[in-house]
Amino acid sequence: MSAEGLEKKKTIDLRKKHIGPSCKIFFSHDPIKIVQAKGQYMYDENGQRYLDCINNVAHVGHCHPDVVKAGAEQMGFLNTNTRFLHDNLVLYAQRLQATLPEKLSVCYFVNSGSEANDLALRLAWQYTGNKDVITLENAYHGHVSSLIDISPYKFHQLSAAAEQNLFVHVAPSPDVYRGKYRVDHPDTATAYADEVKDIIDNVHKKGRKIAAFIAESLQSCGGQVIPPVGYFQQVAEHVHKAGGVFIADEVQVGFGRVGSRFWAFQLQGDDFVPDIVTMGKPIGNGHPMSCVVTTREVAEAFMASGMEYFNTFGGNPVSCAIGLAVLDVIEKEDLQGNALRVGQHLTNLLGKLKERHSLIGDIRGCGLFVGVELVKDRVKLTPATAEAQEVIYRLKEQHILLSADGPHRNVLKFKPPLCFTAQDADLVVEKIDLILTGTLVFMSRA
Amino acid sequence: MSAEGLEKKKTIDLRKKHIGPSCKIFFSHDPIKIVQAKGQYMYDENGQRYLDCINNVAHVGHCHPDVVKAGAEQMGFLNTNTRFLHDNLVLYAQRLQATLPEKLSVCYFVNSGSEANDLALRLAWQYTGNKDVITLENAYHGHVSSLIDISPYKFHQLSAAAEQNLFVHVAPSPDVYRGKYRVDHPDTATAYADEVKDIIDNVHKKGRKIAAFIAESLQSCGGQVIPPVGYFQQVAEHVHKAGGVFIADEVQVGFGRVGSRFWAFQLQGDDFVPDIVTMGKPIGNGHPMSCVVTTREVAEAFMASGMEYFNTFGGNPVSCAIGLAVLDVIEKEDLQGNALRVGQHLTNLLGKLKERHSLIGDIRGCGLFVGVELVKDRVKLTPATAEAQEVIYRLKEQHILLSADGPHRNVLKFKPPLCFTAQDADLVVEKIDLILTGTLVFMSRA
Repeated sequence: MSAEGLEKKKTIDLRKKHIGPSCKIFFSHDPIKIVQAKGQYMYDENGQRYLDCINNVAHVGHCHPDVVKAGAEQMGFLNTNTRFLHDNLVLYAQRLQATLPEKLSVCYFVNSGSEANDLALRLAWQYTGNKDVITLENAYHGHVSSLIDISPYKFHQLSAAAEQNLFVHVAPSPDVYRGKYRVDHPDTATAYADEVKDIIDNVHKKGRKIAAFIAESLQSCGGQVIPPVGYFQQVAEHVHKAGGVFIADEVQVGFGRVGSRFWAFQLQGDDFVPDIVTMGKPIGNGHPMSCVVTTREVAEAFMASGMEYFNTFGGNPVSCAIGLAVLDVIEKEDLQGNALRVGQHLTNLLGKLKERHSLIGDIRGCGLFVGVELVKDRVKLTPATAEAQEVIYRLKEQHILLSADGPHRNVLKFKPPLCFTAQDADLVVEKIDLILTGTLVFMSRA
Repeated sequence: MSAEGLEKKKTIDLRKKHIGPSCKIFFSHDPIKIVQAKGQYMYDENGQRYLDCINNVAHVGHCHPDVVKAGAEQMGFLNTNTRFLHDNLVLYAQRLQATLPEKLSVCYFVNSGSEANDLALRLAWQYTGNKDVITLENAYHGHVSSLIDISPYKFHQLSAAAEQNLFVHVAPSPDVYRGKYRVDHPDTATAYADEVKDIIDNVHKKGRKIAAFIAESLQSCGGQVIPPVGYFQQVAEHVHKAGGVFIADEVQVGFGRVGSRFWAFQLQGDDFVPDIVTMGKPIGNGHPMSCVVTTREVAEAFMASGMEYFNTFGGNPVSCAIGLAVLDVIEKEDLQGNALRVGQHLTNLLGKLKERHSLIGDIRGCGLFVGVELVKDRVKLTPATAEAQEVIYRLKEQHILLSADGPHRNVLKFKPPLCFTAQDADLVVEKIDLILTGTLVFMSRA
């Protein structure tokens, strides 16, 4: 809580002048100026504390001292590229590998989830010799141009009717609450996987070939969607048969967040192993770093192209020191266990809230990745978009940071730092309860 | 110089096992293990000191204490995304803007030169509504898929004959030593710019339209090429007339390296202002960060698409604190002035060497961005590729790090940290002199 600093209005004015207007801010009518953060708390310029339920990047807690120390020490020693040998690089790769199925053994270190997913596509294209990509409805995989192409969440935002690229095919989101096949369907996993198979058949009819199927292990921006168990196995079978690879995007959901497993794709069962896994956001607790892990076979095929892969900052000794520290803290503080326990507590509390508030249509979550879908009608599932926004703004007044996402922006999204406590969960659920109780009154004022 | 650490062989073995084989290492037959660095020096695991003539990323010197301190302190306070207001973001944007022509006023912060160049393309596509891109022969603009497309330096490496994308057009490199128009030509600037005009005319004949011309302000991987003054102005005129924008890639060459000016595009004269400038490598002295700066008009058009631009790590308070510290150090230590003075000294010494060694075909440089092109024949310009490799390896034995690049890998490339001294220049030139004197003897042993 720095004593000095610009007046908030001055900060806003300079931002308007010098920062791209496409870069949106939370609560744009009355944005928050955050000057410090610790654990699951953020502090504004007046020392007001906010409970942070959304910053999944600050995975082990904002400014965790062990992570800061590891980064600061290594910054003072050496920070250079991977064209020199360094122990941090190989020790970190070894540690990451140990969290994954054995065949996922080769790492490429990059700087962001976007760079990771773009490289995953390059690996898939090179390995398979094919071009076409199957992605999910409402998917978001990053901001570089190749990923806008495979992110319906983004390309549907374009005001000018953007052409969907010919090589991109969109499969239904495996959303058993609002999607094409719902909880009442006897076998949603097969039904959704068969949709992917149909796409493959159609692609083949056009004389085209599948390079990859890509999906977040749990859809995040897409509305906190948890695919039915068995879906990935069946999709992988169809995709492999077609000569393609399975890319699991763990950028939002990896590193123990889901509680029962370290990686979200493992929720599908041990018989499922993707060909490529991409990681990002939480990997460095805020430090810009990221990783792609794949099999020896895919890596060798990529090398056989003859093209070197060089990433200036990726895998530098500072990033790797920070990555190692994050893994250490997750283990030392049993944050995966905490995610499981607190996540379960949060989901239970929200479940009780659902019994009393008809606006809550669905509660779904694994560990500290939880979605609360608000609907105006539990049969028609009419999205309660404005109400979700109201809840978010009212929570902000209570100094609680939550966001709403999904294609209808009606899903309250919990993805707090993993040091989130049961008491934090109690507090936020209590506040939501109060807000929902008063919602109609408040809305009528709007 | 850590006392502990893996045996070098163990580091190599783990690297082979867990790091993508496409990620190449310097001196692959006997790679160097670097454990520490300071200023223009790097140290291996045995405490051996290497003079670093190549790491342009460590711009103000490896592990500069002011930069380390700024990063370490901010890491302990707050490291979060730009959806909250923060002074570091706006103050840094303001400081960067002050180094640029006034109309370049809007910043987008990203994580790497690749992310910056990809965003530059997205800006150009959206602003112009056109698709086609003109790039230079031997250009390298980054490793994400959209940039491989516009990087002949990369796509020509592909063993399988890669198809050049239909929307990409390659103009001759404005290389007055080895290129299509040489020093003996009366007006190389116009001749090379007319080549771009011809491409535009051909594109129009095919019913296509130009979105952008992109070039490094000085080609780096392309062989340390310095375009003739006036070339960019004429190209910009042709490109603007065609409805496109001019993207100046300063990832390798910006931030005072060229000595006489802060940005390399300014070497063309004050009458030249690009529409988009991309920055990278030196911007954070090794910290993964990067920036795109453009005009208000381009930024507004990008926003009008309706698509938000969000970059998880880009512009975070730690990156901005580091960026500010780098600008402070450049100023405080007059590193731009040092680049000018030491660069001139280095170029003079190399010029004298050229008089005595026929292998040296050309010396070209601005500040501490210098190329020494080795040729077997000064008339035919036959590239002395193997000899360049010999020089590099022999210098390594002398604990001096230099590299060779360019389409024929025959250009010795100087781009040291800007704290490089006249004594450092004396040493490396003396060693090159000794190596060249003994080259034939050495080569006959090979």
